[in-house]
Amino acid sequence: MDHADYMKLALDLAKLAEGQTSPNPIVGAVCVKNGQIVGTGVHMKAKTPHAEVHALSMAGSHAVDADLYVTLEPCAHIGKTPACTEAIIASGIRRVFIASKDPNPSVNGKGIRLLRDAGIEVITDLCKEEADFSNRAFFHFIQHQQPYVTLKAATTLDGRLATQNGNSKWITSESSRHEVHTLRHTHDAILVGVNTILQDNPFLTTRLPHGGKNPIRIILDRHLRTPKTANVLQDQAAETIIFALESDQPPHSFSDLPNVHVETIPEHIPFLDEVLSRLAKRGIMTLLVEGGSKVHSSFIQARLANELYLYMAPKLIGNGPSLFMNENRSTISESETLRIIDVKQIGEDIRLHALFSTGGVS
Amino acid sequence: MDHADYMKLALDLAKLAEGQTSPNPIVGAVCVKNGQIVGTGVHMKAKTPHAEVHALSMAGSHAVDADLYVTLEPCAHIGKTPACTEAIIASGIRRVFIASKDPNPSVNGKGIRLLRDAGIEVITDLCKEEADFSNRAFFHFIQHQQPYVTLKAATTLDGRLATQNGNSKWITSESSRHEVHTLRHTHDAILVGVNTILQDNPFLTTRLPHGGKNPIRIILDRHLRTPKTANVLQDQAAETIIFALESDQPPHSFSDLPNVHVETIPEHIPFLDEVLSRLAKRGIMTLLVEGGSKVHSSFIQARLANELYLYMAPKLIGNGPSLFMNENRSTISESETLRIIDVKQIGEDIRLHALFSTGGVS
Repeated sequence: MDHADYMKLALDLAKLAEGQTSPNPIVGAVCVKNGQIVGTGVHMKAKTPHAEVHALSMAGSHAVDADLYVTLEPCAHIGKTPACTEAIIASGIRRVFIASKDPNPSVNGKGIRLLRDAGIEVITDLCKEEADFSNRAFFHFIQHQQPYVTLKAATTLDGRLATQNGNSKWITSESSRHEVHTLRHTHDAILVGVNTILQDNPFLTTRLPHGGKNPIRIILDRHLRTPKTANVLQDQAAETIIFALESDQPPHSFSDLPNVHVETIPEHIPFLDEVLSRLAKRGIMTLLVEGGSKVHSSFIQARLANELYLYMAPKLIGNGPSLFMNENRSTISESETLRIIDVKQIGEDIRLHALFSTGGVS
Repeated sequence: MDHADYMKLALDLAKLAEGQTSPNPIVGAVCVKNGQIVGTGVHMKAKTPHAEVHALSMAGSHAVDADLYVTLEPCAHIGKTPACTEAIIASGIRRVFIASKDPNPSVNGKGIRLLRDAGIEVITDLCKEEADFSNRAFFHFIQHQQPYVTLKAATTLDGRLATQNGNSKWITSESSRHEVHTLRHTHDAILVGVNTILQDNPFLTTRLPHGGKNPIRIILDRHLRTPKTANVLQDQAAETIIFALESDQPPHSFSDLPNVHVETIPEHIPFLDEVLSRLAKRGIMTLLVEGGSKVHSSFIQARLANELYLYMAPKLIGNGPSLFMNENRSTISESETLRIIDVKQIGEDIRLHALFSTGGVS
């Protein structure tokens, strides 16, 4: 085991909490003394102890003169929990290895400085690339004050989301549709357009065999066409936020529904951009967009989509809307270009995972 | 090593000759005595010795009382080469393991019968599924008297072959475009529509670093619009066959071009079906279709496409024709359904290999 091996272990630990730490990053920590692992820790959830604290607590007196591997710069501020730098200094740790620097202005190198001031040796940027990538949503959220946006779509091999008549049941197989619930579980919020509500009346909840976290449900509904009887408004399984244009319609009709909020946006402000900023203010760090063609196309055209999960069924239908519809791009060089992270077979289908140019770590 | 292991070795050997045995199948043979491999053979090319002959010749006197594993039923007829059954009987082989039965009416179990009549133990259907699949083109050719048809297309993630203006340079990366030349090398013929000739004036030759076999070039050109100056007619790198409708235009204008043939089809006969039958008569067993949307769609709609290689670039363009265009299918249940064989990353792109319902072994 070398330094990178210990850090990779810390990264693996961090990933255990993927999707459940928002608006915090995922963090793992490993404490090593004389070649033995004496403590491990994971930050499991916002407002609970940080990874370092768990690892040091497990190590106890073995922490004295030990090495600490932590995937993100320890926090130097007393927030929901005490500052990790203090805990590290108090523990007697000799060296600290750090993968990512904290992009948070309230940390921003201060953690590293405080440790060094206390005489602790600090080695930075170990496995930095992998660590930064694992927290790409958090980095994006801090930097842009908007959620990291992932589009999810299911298409045929000829790229259709549905037939021209709107029929889309079912393009992909049950295995793919099951996997989508894992995506819902690991995202803070899920967004659809009002047409999806009107056509499919979905619940947009997470339905996994062993339960799962329901995302907050967001409806883009400029003209407030969502009926009060919609499942997402009635089932109370999670909060639902409707975004509408500020207009003469009184947006009060939903006030008797618990867990339903209507937010209005003035017409002169870019709608989608404002939706994302408002979601960030509510602490939503990751957003899954399960759009139809129109919603997906707006996100793509506005360069507000960061990532794509594309489920493709081995079918050819010959007509219907695609994931992206835009009449103005006349040469291939005008394409939106993505980068494929991986592709795999899921049952009869394939799943392609890709980053938009705005995705990953910027 | 058990019986299946030896047969798999024979199958691996057979695959070495993939794409170069037309109109013959690929065949591998392994001769085993007392747990030692004493002979191996591959059928390399039509009109050259069969796999069994090579394996027995390598085994020499060790063939006496040995086992022979052969991926396809040995031939019982004297054709371009002497009958393999005779060679096997003469060699002193004790047992013969066979994977696929020969679909050829001139063999059709006769090989097995002759061996058994000579007192040789014959075990059939060992690794049959894999062996049948490896010769799916040959089986199809024998059964339907038409070539096995593979569509090749390059699209964006939203399923477009080009923009609505016809721009398609370049959707996929150089790695994918390079791989297409391997497909050309392993197919007997390549087919395009006349629009591809008029728009791109391609050579349709195999351009691989270490050379390669040029496929016969087929142009679907109902109204004989191919100009005499087209590269495929002028370069003489391979034979070029133009299929046109029988009509008042005299199809004689190409007679001065060596290696160019014009075939005319009466208007009342299904054009594509007749093209395939005529190609089979010329000994073309495998056909690669590098169509645009129109050509691909005709093959798909007529259920004459057997297999698909789809190269997808991580791009979204928003408009343009798809691999399959058909306005008449209004629900997903009317889709053409394929089966994915594999999917892999090639440079920045992915390559999806799938079978149409008419593909594989019927």
